[in-house]
Amino acid sequence: MVGQIKRFLVGKPIATEHQHNERLSRITALAVFSSDALSSVAYATEAILSILILGGAAALGLSLEIAGGIAVLLVVVAFSYRQTIRAYPKGGGGYIVARENLGNIYGLIAAGALLIDYVLTVAVSISAGVAAITSLASTWGAPWVGEYAIEIGLVCIMLVTLANLRGVKESGVIFAVPTYIFIASILTLVFYGISTDLLFGANPVAQELPPEIFTGETIGIWLVLRAFAAGCTALTGIEAISDGVPAFRAPESKNAASTLTWMVTILVSMFLGITWLAHAHGAIPNELTHETVLSQIARTIFGNGPIYFVIQSATALILVLAANTAYADFPRLASFLSRDRFLPRQFSSRGDRLVFSNGILALGFFSALLVVIFQANEIAMLPLYAIGVFISFTLSQSGMVRRHFQLKEEGWQRGAVINSMGAIFTAIVLVVLAVTKFTHGAWVVMVLIPMLVLLFNSINRHYGNVARQLSLEGADIPIPLRRHTSIVLVSGIHRGVLPALQYARSISPDNVMAVYVNLDADQTARLQQRWCDWGCDVPLVVLESPYRSLITPLFNYIQEVDSRYTDDVLTVVLPEFVPAHWWEHLLHNQTGMLIKAALMFNKGVVVTSVPYHLER
Amino acid sequence: MVGQIKRFLVGKPIATEHQHNERLSRITALAVFSSDALSSVAYATEAILSILILGGAAALGLSLEIAGGIAVLLVVVAFSYRQTIRAYPKGGGGYIVARENLGNIYGLIAAGALLIDYVLTVAVSISAGVAAITSLASTWGAPWVGEYAIEIGLVCIMLVTLANLRGVKESGVIFAVPTYIFIASILTLVFYGISTDLLFGANPVAQELPPEIFTGETIGIWLVLRAFAAGCTALTGIEAISDGVPAFRAPESKNAASTLTWMVTILVSMFLGITWLAHAHGAIPNELTHETVLSQIARTIFGNGPIYFVIQSATALILVLAANTAYADFPRLASFLSRDRFLPRQFSSRGDRLVFSNGILALGFFSALLVVIFQANEIAMLPLYAIGVFISFTLSQSGMVRRHFQLKEEGWQRGAVINSMGAIFTAIVLVVLAVTKFTHGAWVVMVLIPMLVLLFNSINRHYGNVARQLSLEGADIPIPLRRHTSIVLVSGIHRGVLPALQYARSISPDNVMAVYVNLDADQTARLQQRWCDWGCDVPLVVLESPYRSLITPLFNYIQEVDSRYTDDVLTVVLPEFVPAHWWEHLLHNQTGMLIKAALMFNKGVVVTSVPYHLER
Repeated sequence: MVGQIKRFLVGKPIATEHQHNERLSRITALAVFSSDALSSVAYATEAILSILILGGAAALGLSLEIAGGIAVLLVVVAFSYRQTIRAYPKGGGGYIVARENLGNIYGLIAAGALLIDYVLTVAVSISAGVAAITSLASTWGAPWVGEYAIEIGLVCIMLVTLANLRGVKESGVIFAVPTYIFIASILTLVFYGISTDLLFGANPVAQELPPEIFTGETIGIWLVLRAFAAGCTALTGIEAISDGVPAFRAPESKNAASTLTWMVTILVSMFLGITWLAHAHGAIPNELTHETVLSQIARTIFGNGPIYFVIQSATALILVLAANTAYADFPRLASFLSRDRFLPRQFSSRGDRLVFSNGILALGFFSALLVVIFQANEIAMLPLYAIGVFISFTLSQSGMVRRHFQLKEEGWQRGAVINSMGAIFTAIVLVVLAVTKFTHGAWVVMVLIPMLVLLFNSINRHYGNVARQLSLEGADIPIPLRRHTSIVLVSGIHRGVLPALQYARSISPDNVMAVYVNLDADQTARLQQRWCDWGCDVPLVVLESPYRSLITPLFNYIQEVDSRYTDDVLTVVLPEFVPAHWWEHLLHNQTGMLIKAALMFNKGVVVTSVPYHLER
Repeated sequence: MVGQIKRFLVGKPIATEHQHNERLSRITALAVFSSDALSSVAYATEAILSILILGGAAALGLSLEIAGGIAVLLVVVAFSYRQTIRAYPKGGGGYIVARENLGNIYGLIAAGALLIDYVLTVAVSISAGVAAITSLASTWGAPWVGEYAIEIGLVCIMLVTLANLRGVKESGVIFAVPTYIFIASILTLVFYGISTDLLFGANPVAQELPPEIFTGETIGIWLVLRAFAAGCTALTGIEAISDGVPAFRAPESKNAASTLTWMVTILVSMFLGITWLAHAHGAIPNELTHETVLSQIARTIFGNGPIYFVIQSATALILVLAANTAYADFPRLASFLSRDRFLPRQFSSRGDRLVFSNGILALGFFSALLVVIFQANEIAMLPLYAIGVFISFTLSQSGMVRRHFQLKEEGWQRGAVINSMGAIFTAIVLVVLAVTKFTHGAWVVMVLIPMLVLLFNSINRHYGNVARQLSLEGADIPIPLRRHTSIVLVSGIHRGVLPALQYARSISPDNVMAVYVNLDADQTARLQQRWCDWGCDVPLVVLESPYRSLITPLFNYIQEVDSRYTDDVLTVVLPEFVPAHWWEHLLHNQTGMLIKAALMFNKGVVVTSVPYHLER
């Protein structure tokens, strides 16, 4: 039954031989890899404004300068990643680049940071997507939709998780259509909006605001740095292309590098344009209606009509796609870690549908947890976000610098300069992020990352231990066992016991005994009377149990019998009913399971269940 | 570790021989058995008023007449139960009396109704106890305590559950002290209150009321019936003495009957007195402050001082004790049902501490669930309450009538008249309860009871089936097995596999094969090369698995081997690591467990794990 539900949800298994890697054109690749990066324009401007607003109306004007700074950073990082793309045509994620060039520990730090960030990518993107939908609903007179934000978010995560368990092909149409509609609609908004504003002046956003929106913090360097840090979420996802170089058509590196350039150009245009429009129209984060800044701009410029609808829907869709990219990244990184024995090996086995099912399930679970904890409020999650990405940026660029100095390939000096700039810029931003966001939640990430690294290392140590202990080096071929004793545990004399006695006789013909625990004197006497009719050749041992426990007296007796010889093996045979229906298991004492669990740690004892199948 | 936590919480096990039954004097017995009945005065008056208030201020005056009617009912039921006490000196709960005299199905209806009511007793009593505490806190200037009502209730349930798992002796001081303090303080309140009111006039309760308290329903027979039904919760617990006759000192029946008379006298005095005082002082249920009616009366008469504190504390304590009596009743009834095979047999086994642990845990779980669902609001739970008790009353009294006619013992005519009156009265009230409370939640109980009866019957059918199938009648002594084949499942060649091969050789020397599933062609080739060094005498069978599943190809192969002979047995040997620490289990594929579960339903196949113990 469980199997049928799984088939229905996930689909039929796919044979290993059908595994193949599609090669993507630049047009498709842009759509596949850019949704995470591009979608951040849906919330990055709002994140900046939500900090600046604390300094009052005058501070809001700083948004343009801050967005400009972030645009510069974007360009530097993009140039830096073009180097990585060239150096790692097989894909150079933060974990691989840092581990290869800086050593295990830095690789693991990058990996921990990235895993956390992928979970946040899903939670933030889905929440922002839900915000786009609820803003649309609210504008169209259905503000009650906003009350179900968490539920909508959880359903979205479930659907994306299921789609990925089925195996979403990272291919063509599914990604291309919404991504290009999003790019087109946002660029239309930006160019049409800016031109009409410049020609006819900008009308302010009409909206009801909460009574107190300015808390009157001092406008100073601290506020600016915080706003800058908040806006840095625009950089998340920019590394996606460097992870996926092998998916490009030949020449892979060249195509990937030019796709990256295109992506950053589009991203910078959209981000700066939206920030400009937000400033021009006075759009600000609204805690009362929860309408997004992008929605405010779009409806002010185009009205509540179909274009507004397209923009909001495309935004929601690309945010879901952005979440979807994390569903490719997280399981892949987890499988790398698992392959290198830093995560349980379950993460590296492909499921029925050729995908890393366990990684997908883990990602779905943790991101759903975040959506619940943060009540689907993406702005509240942002302080935790971006830290991980910037740790990975810094480590990966530093790794590239080291690599240039070690390999000294052609033109390495130029590469070293570019990557050094990238490393220094991202390191500075990382410090700014860590300091400004620390008390707003970033400390959680900073505590989690070292804990994850410790976890990775202890898992690795365990697997190393196991491998050493299982190694056959110096092992002897075991000598045949001299003695074999079987103990049949009986709960009475009935049909279920007969096959167990029969089995025990067959594996150790000369050494079988039946053991019974005396819980009720009358029943015990009756059993002893009837025993000879069915098992007289097997001696019946009755154990006393003053505390009504089955396990303790059995355990002591088994240890006593086991200690009699050293070169023997002891098999404990448990007669076990197998009911005809699974729920009927609940109606029988789970003693067999407890006995098995208790005896598992006993060396030299083998536990065997001999099933007796009930018919109905 | 789990064992140590359990020892700490529950205490050391107690030997079976220490089981004994204490005999109670009438004074102690009154305390032990009456807490449930007496404690209902803490909410019964309030329940009546909470209905009457819907009809406006004028309707409140009806409370005295309604309370009088309930008092008459109490006396009739008490007389009726005196007959049961005499007829069942070994204890005559509703289940036993109805089953013995009316047949299985009525017994099960009574049992289902009582189980539900015991769960409600705990939830209602604990919630009312919490209300007494929060009312006290609110009067003393700490209204915020009320916000934690659910949490306080859950902690109380946890403590009572734990205390019962340790085994609370139903004895002396623990029960007697708070019960008699409660009786004394309430009777003092009643007599002092009534005399001063009559002498000097009653001052009204000073309290802030919510703006709209009267909804202006018509005062009519419907409202009166609903208020009457609400007040009938005063009858819950009155049957407790008839369940516990054997706990009395000899002459058991006589002592029990006179204790019942005393209990009902006290109960009627307190109930009528409180209702009179509530009317005189104009105390009414207050949805704003959530202060109980009893608390309003007590502080109006005695002020906020120490006497008020004693009354509130004693009320809270006796309510907790009332919950505690359900912890004796529910597990006992569940053990009767389990002994008669209507509930899983786990309910009839005594735990470490000689108590029916599973019944206690089930009661704790379900009552905690109710407290959460109803947010610790006892007045909201009352419509579900009392239905069960009245079903049990009616069935048990009808059973007594039948018994009188069948046995025709001395003086049976008088008994038959008394029990008939009891049966008719309670049946009428049952109809009133069912009709007036139906839409307010009683329908849930009326749906649950038949479902429980169906469940009891299907469990009974299952156990009957099992017993028939296990019966040795007509069974033959099994002939020794002719052939024994062992299949060792290997995941590679390492130290963990050697003991499994050795074990397989020892149980079926001539018929051992090793089976390996090909998931990776390179690894398979390497294994085949190395196999001969360690297991050349055992043939290695490699199975193909196009869908990367381990289970399916194994399963098919095992079925094929198994089908070769009919008079053989097939043992599947699984080499299994036993890690040194329990959490390390998570780091290994749970394949072994899956294989065991999959093969469990295969007849003629025995699965054996041969453990290999890792050192660290």
